[in-house]
Amino acid sequence: MKHRVLVLHGPNLNALGSREPKVYGSTTLAQIDAAVRRLAKKLAIDVAIEQHQGEGELIEAVHRAAARGYAIIINPGAYTHYSYALRDALAAVSVPKIEVHLTNIYARESFRRRSVMTPVVNGTVAGFGAESYLLALRAAAAMLDGIRR
Amino acid sequence: MKHRVLVLHGPNLNALGSREPKVYGSTTLAQIDAAVRRLAKKLAIDVAIEQHQGEGELIEAVHRAAARGYAIIINPGAYTHYSYALRDALAAVSVPKIEVHLTNIYARESFRRRSVMTPVVNGTVAGFGAESYLLALRAAAAMLDGIRR
Amino acid sequence: MKHRVLVLHGPNLNALGSREPKVYGSTTLAQIDAAVRRLAKKLAIDVAIEQHQGEGELIEAVHRAAARGYAIIINPGAYTHYSYALRDALAAVSVPKIEVHLTNIYARESFRRRSVMTPVVNGTVAGFGAESYLLALRAAAAMLDGIRR
Amino acid sequence: MKHRVLVLHGPNLNALGSREPKVYGSTTLAQIDAAVRRLAKKLAIDVAIEQHQGEGELIEAVHRAAARGYAIIINPGAYTHYSYALRDALAAVSVPKIEVHLTNIYARESFRRRSVMTPVVNGTVAGFGAESYLLALRAAAAMLDGIRR
Amino acid sequence: MKHRVLVLHGPNLNALGSREPKVYGSTTLAQIDAAVRRLAKKLAIDVAIEQHQGEGELIEAVHRAAARGYAIIINPGAYTHYSYALRDALAAVSVPKIEVHLTNIYARESFRRRSVMTPVVNGTVAGFGAESYLLALRAAAAMLDGIRR
Amino acid sequence: MKHRVLVLHGPNLNALGSREPKVYGSTTLAQIDAAVRRLAKKLAIDVAIEQHQGEGELIEAVHRAAARGYAIIINPGAYTHYSYALRDALAAVSVPKIEVHLTNIYARESFRRRSVMTPVVNGTVAGFGAESYLLALRAAAAMLDGIRR
Amino acid sequence: MKHRVLVLHGPNLNALGSREPKVYGSTTLAQIDAAVRRLAKKLAIDVAIEQHQGEGELIEAVHRAAARGYAIIINPGAYTHYSYALRDALAAVSVPKIEVHLTNIYARESFRRRSVMTPVVNGTVAGFGAESYLLALRAAAAMLDGIRR
Amino acid sequence: MKHRVLVLHGPNLNALGSREPKVYGSTTLAQIDAAVRRLAKKLAIDVAIEQHQGEGELIEAVHRAAARGYAIIINPGAYTHYSYALRDALAAVSVPKIEVHLTNIYARESFRRRSVMTPVVNGTVAGFGAESYLLALRAAAAMLDGIRR
Amino acid sequence: MKHRVLVLHGPNLNALGSREPKVYGSTTLAQIDAAVRRLAKKLAIDVAIEQHQGEGELIEAVHRAAARGYAIIINPGAYTHYSYALRDALAAVSVPKIEVHLTNIYARESFRRRSVMTPVVNGTVAGFGAESYLLALRAAAAMLDGIRR
Amino acid sequence: MKHRVLVLHGPNLNALGSREPKVYGSTTLAQIDAAVRRLAKKLAIDVAIEQHQGEGELIEAVHRAAARGYAIIINPGAYTHYSYALRDALAAVSVPKIEVHLTNIYARESFRRRSVMTPVVNGTVAGFGAESYLLALRAAAAMLDGIRR
Amino acid sequence: MKHRVLVLHGPNLNALGSREPKVYGSTTLAQIDAAVRRLAKKLAIDVAIEQHQGEGELIEAVHRAAARGYAIIINPGAYTHYSYALRDALAAVSVPKIEVHLTNIYARESFRRRSVMTPVVNGTVAGFGAESYLLALRAAAAMLDGIRR
Amino acid sequence: MKHRVLVLHGPNLNALGSREPKVYGSTTLAQIDAAVRRLAKKLAIDVAIEQHQGEGELIEAVHRAAARGYAIIINPGAYTHYSYALRDALAAVSVPKIEVHLTNIYARESFRRRSVMTPVVNGTVAGFGAESYLLALRAAAAMLDGIRR
Repeated sequence: MKHRVLVLHGPNLNALGSREPKVYGSTTLAQIDAAVRRLAKKLAIDVAIEQHQGEGELIEAVHRAAARGYAIIINPGAYTHYSYALRDALAAVSVPKIEVHLTNIYARESFRRRSVMTPVVNGTVAGFGAESYLLALRAAAAMLDGIRR
Repeated sequence: MKHRVLVLHGPNLNALGSREPKVYGSTTLAQIDAAVRRLAKKLAIDVAIEQHQGEGELIEAVHRAAARGYAIIINPGAYTHYSYALRDALAAVSVPKIEVHLTNIYARESFRRRSVMTPVVNGTVAGFGAESYLLALRAAAAMLDGIRR
Repeated sequence: MKHRVLVLHGPNLNALGSREPKVYGSTTLAQIDAAVRRLAKKLAIDVAIEQHQGEGELIEAVHRAAARGYAIIINPGAYTHYSYALRDALAAVSVPKIEVHLTNIYARESFRRRSVMTPVVNGTVAGFGAESYLLALRAAAAMLDGIRR
Repeated sequence: MKHRVLVLHGPNLNALGSREPKVYGSTTLAQIDAAVRRLAKKLAIDVAIEQHQGEGELIEAVHRAAARGYAIIINPGAYTHYSYALRDALAAVSVPKIEVHLTNIYARESFRRRSVMTPVVNGTVAGFGAESYLLALRAAAAMLDGIRR
Repeated sequence: MKHRVLVLHGPNLNALGSREPKVYGSTTLAQIDAAVRRLAKKLAIDVAIEQHQGEGELIEAVHRAAARGYAIIINPGAYTHYSYALRDALAAVSVPKIEVHLTNIYARESFRRRSVMTPVVNGTVAGFGAESYLLALRAAAAMLDGIRR
Repeated sequence: MKHRVLVLHGPNLNALGSREPKVYGSTTLAQIDAAVRRLAKKLAIDVAIEQHQGEGELIEAVHRAAARGYAIIINPGAYTHYSYALRDALAAVSVPKIEVHLTNIYARESFRRRSVMTPVVNGTVAGFGAESYLLALRAAAAMLDGIRR
Repeated sequence: MKHRVLVLHGPNLNALGSREPKVYGSTTLAQIDAAVRRLAKKLAIDVAIEQHQGEGELIEAVHRAAARGYAIIINPGAYTHYSYALRDALAAVSVPKIEVHLTNIYARESFRRRSVMTPVVNGTVAGFGAESYLLALRAAAAMLDGIRR
Repeated sequence: MKHRVLVLHGPNLNALGSREPKVYGSTTLAQIDAAVRRLAKKLAIDVAIEQHQGEGELIEAVHRAAARGYAIIINPGAYTHYSYALRDALAAVSVPKIEVHLTNIYARESFRRRSVMTPVVNGTVAGFGAESYLLALRAAAAMLDGIRR
Repeated sequence: MKHRVLVLHGPNLNALGSREPKVYGSTTLAQIDAAVRRLAKKLAIDVAIEQHQGEGELIEAVHRAAARGYAIIINPGAYTHYSYALRDALAAVSVPKIEVHLTNIYARESFRRRSVMTPVVNGTVAGFGAESYLLALRAAAAMLDGIRR
Repeated sequence: MKHRVLVLHGPNLNALGSREPKVYGSTTLAQIDAAVRRLAKKLAIDVAIEQHQGEGELIEAVHRAAARGYAIIINPGAYTHYSYALRDALAAVSVPKIEVHLTNIYARESFRRRSVMTPVVNGTVAGFGAESYLLALRAAAAMLDGIRR
Repeated sequence: MKHRVLVLHGPNLNALGSREPKVYGSTTLAQIDAAVRRLAKKLAIDVAIEQHQGEGELIEAVHRAAARGYAIIINPGAYTHYSYALRDALAAVSVPKIEVHLTNIYARESFRRRSVMTPVVNGTVAGFGAESYLLALRAAAAMLDGIRR
Repeated sequence: MKHRVLVLHGPNLNALGSREPKVYGSTTLAQIDAAVRRLAKKLAIDVAIEQHQGEGELIEAVHRAAARGYAIIINPGAYTHYSYALRDALAAVSVPKIEVHLTNIYARESFRRRSVMTPVVNGTVAGFGAESYLLALRAAAAMLDGIRR
């Protein structure tokens, strides 16, 4: 069976491209998703992609994905910094979990320098723009290979 | 008329039993709910039970319950530690309000040692597992008896 | 074309009038909305009014309003103090944005003395009860006049 | 053999009834003790009750009780907030240990919002007045039943 | 009798227009005062305007104004952030008191994000440039109308 | 009836005279007590004097004195800085309560700059050596005069 | 030669009697001054009394008084909490210096619980209302007696 | 005359051996005391050993020992972290004073990483189990030799 | 010309494999280096690898590498958390810079949760063990491709 | 035209020589001023010297000097540590600004280790006694030369 | 085989004797080393002694010593307070490790009151001057005896 | 004999001119050194100049210079903010010591606003670019003149 990976985008990522382009660049979410799908195809990964604004919806998505055996690549948007409820959802599931950020959050406003998710994920990739997602996909593949073996 | 009590479960409690069993035990939410219903029946309390992942849904549930005269037993899950919006909902209603936790949250990670709910509830029961809910139900009954008298 | 302004009420504002009246007064949300509509009519502003309990719904409302050219007057309720996700939504849109509060939040509990929204809005009006909204509407009109000119 | 439970009152609880009645109510310690004894009798528990002003005396009482197989229900009074020596005594014994408070200490002065005992007890009941002790007695009974089984 | 309002400018406001124009804009204090006088005339308010560099002089102005029945609109300049003596002066008088700021002080250096005045004034208007004063004047009029009625 | 005042010395005050004389001076506790008795006699006050090392003993002394109508002058020694149990004892009694210190505790090590007693006493006299006690005795007399009148 | 003592009142003390009477009482500054003068006469002290709103004026007064050999009794008002410049003035002079407060500042808002003056004065008297000044005058007399001897 | 050394055990040390053996090991207090006595004999030291649960009793013991010329080796148990009264007792006496701990307290819970005693003792030995006491005894001997010489 | 990348290992990485294997795993540095060289060959990157224990040596290596046009992948070991001198070296050079960590440093001791390097690098990869280096090498390749294009 | 430099002395500097001579030395302000004038003459600088106790007066002096083209050498005395109003005055003017201190303020009490002026001046000279002023005068000359060129 | 112990001196210890003699005494490092060698001989320990100024050199020394089976007695000098890299070196090796200090570092400047080494060593000896090293040598011998047995 | 002064440059100063020129300017270290040598010649000072990247090397240089009677002018680079080992080296020597910075470090990132060196040097010159070194050289000359006299 193919490896399964869910890419989960958090709040406001729908606005990528027009949102503060000096910070987030001009690539749109659709362009990122297309690049993710291309690499997934190349790596023979069964990839699913969702975006949600609400904490509750993201929590639901985490439980649903884990129940169906998907590894999770999550960009929690601003929930990164305070959503202990989303963190608990991630902690509650035992599939591989990778946190990604487009920007180098540790070089920005002080409230962005802390992620409450990081202690419960397996690893983090941050600061490479759209490339962050592609590196995370490779990392997920490597982890799933390790588990299967 | 019978006393009315709403038991309100917060985010991720749906996963009880499989979620970090070393921390939360192996009892499922369905088992807790059954025990609550048995004791409610014995105490002649009209009990309702809801579980929500989202902050907005929990806030709605609090307003709806209070409007219909239900006392509230709430396990706010991780919202316990930061949801001032849910706290404001509890503060906005004048029915008896009891906070419960399965675990002794004060003996866990530092961010769990603070509840923003506690200042606006009447009392707290924490650390007794499923028994926490049963003690809270007895406490609610005692408070409602006191009010009726 | 008329100026467009969205008045966005956050969580628990539905309970105004009955909610902690010593703090929030006895004016209901319906009465505030009526006063806002009267002044909007007088100032020839096309006004829309929404109220949401959930963070996700408020974020959606911000994106939707900005896409249709509405300036935003927002009372974020308790999200004021911690919702970086809502803050990011406000930061992501380039329409005029004004924060209002019924009460003087800086004279209340310590957690209420900090707004994570303020750094990304154009200005703040706080402490004048329902009048806060009317002053904000005038401020929005002045800002929109300034942009159009 | 009957279950054994020690109810241990800390400093200043002797003054209940006359001490700051707006905070602590007008029930006296004798009235609480009588209620505790009535419920203990009903639950067939062998109950002992002590009150001490000094840290050393409370530490002694904990060691003595544990040596004789008593579960411990303790209201540490103001020692709650700083007596690491009493905490160490509780941590040193392996009988069931429950912390009770008459008031909702988390809704009071900031120094009262922290209990150094909580990390080493099994559970906490706070905010229900004299009823807190009765709930704790039921909790102790449930725990002792669980151990015996 | 006409409503009376004192507009009180704090330290360094004399330099408006030439002082850090990227932060404070190019409008001069004289231009603001003229706009205030025009609106006061339109609203039939008896307006007085003073500017002082010294803490003592501002304290005197507050006592003098209150003794003669003037509501107070104050822009405390940098005293906003530490002058408890000026705060005490405002707290000592019972006329309506409104705090204004040209800039959104909460979006600037960290020391400017805290106002020691806010807890003792009735309301705050910040971030609208010269318009802040005009909104404050309308707010004062509304408050004085409310008191007279 | 004569006014009654208890002078209560806390831990280590027995060592006055030999204890760190550069800090505490060379006056002994016996000399202070003699001066207190002389002034009490002159002011026609019925004075009692006790010294205790233990927190529990001081708490007992406070309850016992209040029950017999004594105003309390207390030098809590190092308990000043952390004994919430002693503070609660003082808060629990409604007789006049005055805190005294031989030294200017606010000019010493940082841990001595905070008194947990001060919020629950009527007033404080610190830094005048033995004279602190005499001033406190006069203050107590003035307060008792005020109550009797 | 008679002992010389300057009583120095800080900002807003002119408003005593009408200023927040629940906090500061209804005694006026004139009544306090009269009582001070009566006791000074009785103790054969040459007393001077000044009140200033400004930091600079108070600093001047300290230097002037010390140059003429006056001991200083100072109620620095809100400058107590932050005026390091006034503190430096007190530190710069070597006459006896006593800090007085009408209220128990340590039982009020958190910013009032710290005095930057205390480390450089000889002693403090706080919380006895007008009586604070009279006790301070006696303390000054005792200190001056000690120096002369 | 032989050197005199008091070994002073603080609260809960009576429970050594059974108390949290993973942390404190299985050696009992009696075994430690025997080893101390053996080495004292070898070093020709006149050793006394006491254990107290209460702060007051430990303070008494310190004063009593110093009055009779005993150097002091103290394991203050949990009082280490907050008993400024015990610290003051140690500071008040001028005999050699050594602090010992069985465990490496700096590697444990954060509240245990601070000793309020250390600034007033001559030296510290921590982390060597029962051996800590023996090293301290040698250190005391070396210090007493240095004084006698 | 081939892309050039320096992989720079900080202090104690020489001990990988034997050092705290529960934390760092049993892979040796030689094994990591071999994997890095294999991938570099595949990606046609000219890779250099160095390990230094000293801050000064690492600073030298950064300046030397940048002068010769190498992108830098750095695992600063414990210098991550405090070496502002190494940070300044990285900030001083304008080649691509990537920070890697074997472990998820944000899930470990609190002092490890802060990297002073992150604000001056382009991106971070952490938590994937040896795979972290391989992902960083791919990220460097992508960045260098982007620069060349 | 000659360079113009204002030397501005803050509060309490009038007392130099007699004020805490162990800290500030025995040189008087008149002696410093004479040395400044001698060096100014040698460097052909038009020097003015003022001393003020009050914050308002210093703010006025800054505005006045800048309007007339004087560079500013300021020793803000204790205002260094908290006067944001004086800082704003310095920030508001664009002439060269140099901060001087007689003592090494960073080696003194903790409150003196922070200067709120430093971020808005061009440079700082501290710790060389009267020589600090002379070095600052040379620095001002160098800066003015640089501007003129 | 004889026990092997490395005594490792950190930065600036070369200057002992002339360096701040009021703090560190007049004993030179050579005198300490000679005393260490004398006791080592008596205890039949194979002792090596090194001193390094640099962090990297100390890290090297730790790895080298551990590889050859030496227990480590380390006085890390000022690295004690911030060198997480040296701490990691100590944590990486499994030989007995003892931290020594000549002075009672907990009684000195606040930055010296924290050792980042202590959590990873077996025990600490501080405050006994040169004797600290001798006690540590005995402790090392006891630990090595315990391991061999 | 001529005065001797060592100018000691810390880490990364080798890169001056190319390193972040917006912050540090385009002057190279060679140009600064040449200017220092010119002024030294003019003032008849025997000047030596060194630059080191490593903490250990800087410490060595300090000891070596002091042993040969050189006053020390040091720009510690980023070690300024955390190297207590270098601070101890400076504290250990009794020659004149002056700290210089090219930039106004107090106006930069928060971690740069604190110098751990300042408490142990005689004075500081910061913010004047290359001129900082020249002023420091004059200050050193003045200090050495003062000592010789």
